[in-house]
Amino acid sequence: MRMPDVLQKKRDGHALSAREIKDVIAAYMKGEIPDYQMSALLMAIYFRGMNKEETVALTEALVCSGEVLDFSSLGPVADKHSTGGVGDKTTLVLLPLVAAAGVVVPKMSGRGLAHTGGTIDKLSCIPGFRTDLRPEEFRRQAKEIGLAITGQTPKLAPADGKLYALRDVTATVDSIPLIASSVMSKKIASGAGSIVLDVKAGSGAFMQDLDSARRLARTMVEIGTGLGRKVTAVISDMEQPLGHAVGNHLEVMEAIEILQGRGPADVTRLCLALGAEMLLLAGMAGGRQEAEEKLERLLASGRALEKFRLFVAAQGGDPGIVEHPEKLGTPLLKAALYAWQEGYISRVDARQVGVASLLLGAGRQKKEDEIDLTAGIKLYKKTGDFVAKGELLAEMYAAKRERIAAAEKTLKAAYAFSSSPAETPALLKGLITAENL
Amino acid sequence: MRMPDVLQKKRDGHALSAREIKDVIAAYMKGEIPDYQMSALLMAIYFRGMNKEETVALTEALVCSGEVLDFSSLGPVADKHSTGGVGDKTTLVLLPLVAAAGVVVPKMSGRGLAHTGGTIDKLSCIPGFRTDLRPEEFRRQAKEIGLAITGQTPKLAPADGKLYALRDVTATVDSIPLIASSVMSKKIASGAGSIVLDVKAGSGAFMQDLDSARRLARTMVEIGTGLGRKVTAVISDMEQPLGHAVGNHLEVMEAIEILQGRGPADVTRLCLALGAEMLLLAGMAGGRQEAEEKLERLLASGRALEKFRLFVAAQGGDPGIVEHPEKLGTPLLKAALYAWQEGYISRVDARQVGVASLLLGAGRQKKEDEIDLTAGIKLYKKTGDFVAKGELLAEMYAAKRERIAAAEKTLKAAYAFSSSPAETPALLKGLITAENL
Repeated sequence: MRMPDVLQKKRDGHALSAREIKDVIAAYMKGEIPDYQMSALLMAIYFRGMNKEETVALTEALVCSGEVLDFSSLGPVADKHSTGGVGDKTTLVLLPLVAAAGVVVPKMSGRGLAHTGGTIDKLSCIPGFRTDLRPEEFRRQAKEIGLAITGQTPKLAPADGKLYALRDVTATVDSIPLIASSVMSKKIASGAGSIVLDVKAGSGAFMQDLDSARRLARTMVEIGTGLGRKVTAVISDMEQPLGHAVGNHLEVMEAIEILQGRGPADVTRLCLALGAEMLLLAGMAGGRQEAEEKLERLLASGRALEKFRLFVAAQGGDPGIVEHPEKLGTPLLKAALYAWQEGYISRVDARQVGVASLLLGAGRQKKEDEIDLTAGIKLYKKTGDFVAKGELLAEMYAAKRERIAAAEKTLKAAYAFSSSPAETPALLKGLITAENL
Repeated sequence: MRMPDVLQKKRDGHALSAREIKDVIAAYMKGEIPDYQMSALLMAIYFRGMNKEETVALTEALVCSGEVLDFSSLGPVADKHSTGGVGDKTTLVLLPLVAAAGVVVPKMSGRGLAHTGGTIDKLSCIPGFRTDLRPEEFRRQAKEIGLAITGQTPKLAPADGKLYALRDVTATVDSIPLIASSVMSKKIASGAGSIVLDVKAGSGAFMQDLDSARRLARTMVEIGTGLGRKVTAVISDMEQPLGHAVGNHLEVMEAIEILQGRGPADVTRLCLALGAEMLLLAGMAGGRQEAEEKLERLLASGRALEKFRLFVAAQGGDPGIVEHPEKLGTPLLKAALYAWQEGYISRVDARQVGVASLLLGAGRQKKEDEIDLTAGIKLYKKTGDFVAKGELLAEMYAAKRERIAAAEKTLKAAYAFSSSPAETPALLKGLITAENL
């Protein structure tokens, strides 16, 4: 394999062989291929794409660059991944919910580099909660209570980490085969037999249009299936934020409300849909309806909430947060946003709400940034709601007055009004399984 | 200027500003932009191209990275560049020819990395000839006799050298804006007020089709004109080799024959056409016909040949080679290729003849390769000629029997026969001037 030949082949629109892709990744990890050739290849892939065989081979090569975990002895092991959105706290609900149904979920989660933090950041709001379990603790807890979460170890798919760092500085992040193989390499290396993907589409998502979201979802399902995993992707709306809470401690509170059966309808609905797919892939239900009903019963009976308490306690956290959510933290400042006109809300733009929450301190723009876990936005009105002038639309939480001043304009710009009734965007936009690829 | 933003801009098909291009080249030369970002940019340029303003700005940035020579005090200074072809000895003829007409040609020439050597390699066949003149010798000789040649100094457009090395290993050589700016940066830095370009089109050329050759020619004329130089491009045929001689010492011999007025018609014709453009740009003739007639007289009167002798002697070479061409070297071995059938020759493929001469030892595949200056091919028959079976088609010259064995099959494959008269390809295929851009 001569790298200039591989580069020319991809540049000219020909597919690389699995052998070539594996040799390139292996040689790159050994330092035999310099960054300047790899970045040229990434740019050529950006323009030419990759076919199914190529993305499968690339993912396998990334997986093989590091450790591959195996939890299959613990039972039916499932994982879940979201491409990220504003107000997305589904993982916090799904993990205890499906664990209560008998699925084992040992989850490794990356730190969020988005408008609000990732799952690990959210869980850090819980006093005492440890997100850095040792491998043996992680496995023991997953075995004992059916779920565990820990930060991602750099030992999984290290080639992905190295490639991602290069993509980040060479304008080659936005490539569906590269995104898909990156996500799937981590999921496959973390040892789940089945994986449910929540691919968001809309202004607040990485994939802004439905077509791109579908292509990404299909590519990821193809990769997982090609590498012997059971994979289903749900495509869900991210035109407006999910639920009413945006920001770390607010989202943990809302997750608890959902587990208590009194959460917002949209996010509850999405949790049931994703959870049902997890049950189906794990072989714990015969059909979608059966699976959803099973999960609804686990919410209604309090067993999912009980699993959540066990989980929090097992990781050193205070389960008293369920009764005393104020233990999750109290923001220093609070500011209300009132409707400046009467009408039907025709839009609550997810991206602008995300940017506003970032400006309030809830997310990080750079890896090094500190998150203010108490910052965020509570949305009282969403798309389709009618408001009178002066009615409360939202509340902003932050530690500094300047942050609220900075965020207010953006949050206001997220809202649009209409004199006629506005439709709520459909929450579930598509389902891609190995069968309907 | 943030490099990831520049990369994304070009990747997304937007034009870079002149400021951005200059900042990128300057930062790259200072080591502030790493190779991996530059190679990603080169690949994005490969796919997205560059508009006129961008190529002009890139060329100017390359020129400004090093020394810029100025010979304007010596008179009307002209330069000539060929994009390279098989059997192309026109520079050896043109320099003394236009110098005899009063144009000053201080020429810097790179080493050839092609089927046969470059002009510097060819001149090395002349006993005693020095191709490494010191700057002051070079200028003095150009002033005294109107022409001088020397190897290219790395001080001219060093950014081009650095970029080219990166392009060479990242499959980003074949990009018209990158090729054009690379060529023009060297020409402009070497100080010529007017430049005539010989852009070859055909199997033995870098640009194999006429359309690409035209685009390259147009881009180079645009760049030169944009940077205040007078530039004309002649597009000439490279489907079959130029003249009858391919290989370094053979080509010097043929150049002398042309200067003696008894060279092959095609290459003589091309020299007159290119020379006429040089005279026109230098303001030494009122029209094309007048210019060509002037040059024809200089050939017929022996004044061009006399200038060649002066030139050879001035650079330390033995002018006796004119009467005793055997002084240019004698190949150890010679092998004839006879026609294996009767018919009209319908093709003498330039690329295959070039590869055969490379196999004989006349060129270098890698920069480090040694050239055998006596190796080469003498073509006795060309496209359009009728041959009887057993008639002499060509002779091969080499130092080793294995080299002849290796080249013979390729040389045979260059020929095709037809039972009906075959047309000779037109030699002059287009003319691009600043006026007809």
